Amino acid sequence: MLSAAEQVSRSVHSLGAGLPSRDARLAYRSGKVGVTAGVAPGYVQGNLAVVPEKLAASFHRFCQLNPKPCPIIGMSEVGDPRIPALGIDLDIRTDIPRYRVWRDGQLSEEPTDIMAHWRDDLVAFVIGCSFSFEEALIADGLKIRHIEEKRNVPMYRTNVPCASAGPFAGPMVVSMRPFKPAEAIRAIQITTRFPAVHGAPVHIDKPELIGIKDIAKPDYGDAVSIQPDEMPVFWACGVTPQSVILQSRPAFAITHAPGFMLVTDVRNSEFSIQ
Amino acid sequence: MLSAAEQVSRSVHSLGAGLPSRDARLAYRSGKVGVTAGVAPGYVQGNLAVVPEKLAASFHRFCQLNPKPCPIIGMSEVGDPRIPALGIDLDIRTDIPRYRVWRDGQLSEEPTDIMAHWRDDLVAFVIGCSFSFEEALIADGLKIRHIEEKRNVPMYRTNVPCASAGPFAGPMVVSMRPFKPAEAIRAIQITTRFPAVHGAPVHIDKPELIGIKDIAKPDYGDAVSIQPDEMPVFWACGVTPQSVILQSRPAFAITHAPGFMLVTDVRNSEFSIQ
Repeated sequence: MLSAAEQVSRSVHSLGAGLPSRDARLAYRSGKVGVTAGVAPGYVQGNLAVVPEKLAASFHRFCQLNPKPCPIIGMSEVGDPRIPALGIDLDIRTDIPRYRVWRDGQLSEEPTDIMAHWRDDLVAFVIGCSFSFEEALIADGLKIRHIEEKRNVPMYRTNVPCASAGPFAGPMVVSMRPFKPAEAIRAIQITTRFPAVHGAPVHIDKPELIGIKDIAKPDYGDAVSIQPDEMPVFWACGVTPQSVILQSRPAFAITHAPGFMLVTDVRNSEFSIQ
Repeated sequence: MLSAAEQVSRSVHSLGAGLPSRDARLAYRSGKVGVTAGVAPGYVQGNLAVVPEKLAASFHRFCQLNPKPCPIIGMSEVGDPRIPALGIDLDIRTDIPRYRVWRDGQLSEEPTDIMAHWRDDLVAFVIGCSFSFEEALIADGLKIRHIEEKRNVPMYRTNVPCASAGPFAGPMVVSMRPFKPAEAIRAIQITTRFPAVHGAPVHIDKPELIGIKDIAKPDYGDAVSIQPDEMPVFWACGVTPQSVILQSRPAFAITHAPGFMLVTDVRNSEFSIQ
């Protein structure tokens, strides 16, 4: 969670018009629809989770207890659709290209805005996404297999339990990227610098040790090729909070639709601790 | 290699008598003999390599080209047995408990001082040693298998060639410590902070990829147990420069005897870049 001071300092970045991230949000706000992969390179994208106030404290505590899968990079006031820390003019109700509205844990709609669904008791959480550290890995010369193969990142439900809070409990979901050993070491060094976007891997190699039975059958996303001289490297995944919310079957919740992320005005480099 | 400024600033640490490191050197100087494992905890220990001036430039270049196995932490002037960067009163001729004198690449003596062997054309190189980062790993709660099993660290000749310089060429030697995956990730993070003492691992798991045929048969040191839920983690090893020197069959060289290291007044924490 960003401090008020950080929110102000970050907002300063966001005042100027013509930021590619802001332009993207304005386009989505005015009806454009599309996945956000590759949109506004260099700017942080986030996962959205919106829950009613009576669940927000528990969900906030859940994220606090599980910072690797659930790094909060922005949070709204109750009923307030703005998150100035992530963009001075950002409106969480309109700025994501596609949403998912959940009722009693079941998907009810996939609208392109949530003006009609917003309520005075809703709290929006924005959670860091691996796009940020993938950009840092690519900038260092590493190749990301699922990007090379034009697929979604493979994700797996593990047997590693998250710390529970109120109704929110469940296993950690991880994303997987295969690397040669020396590349894996470098990837660990680079992603360690990005704790706000999942940080260092939680596991390397030996998928069975975290309850993954078949690496070729991800629970979310697509399988990717793994060469004999490579090892799977596993990062805590932002799908975790979403899967945990839905498992708790809340009367009402809103998330982004997979691949349709919130594009923010925060630069990826701002999340590097070195 | 330390800058003059660093040498001065580090020497300041060394002025005070009663440093456990200095006391250890004084004891060795006055004839005490023993391995240095566990001596003066918190202080850097180093590998010694002494070569004639006509080889020193090539050896210095070899270390420069291969900083992971050959991190130079101190170096003498030609013919000068002092290295104030590592201890204001340090005398390289007397302060190591046991030396090895090599002639034409063959071991000729194992004296407890080299007063009779010192020459005006000799240059002493001190190379970082993994004791420093092992202390940081232990301080973080990790267990070092060969220490737990009271053995020497297992070391292996790899098929990874060092960059050659003059007569100095040969494969990298690595040390191995087994860890569970999450521990291996933590060990990579911690040792990355210590580039002056080999830094991050050079390889993890899959020994065959670096030419290690049988992990149970190290080329130096002792085998240690590896559990099914563990992976071998490999660090560049300070034995590399010694093996490369001896392979080049120099007319004359001096090294420390294995396990009998140079104890310096530099604190391990001084070598942490964070």
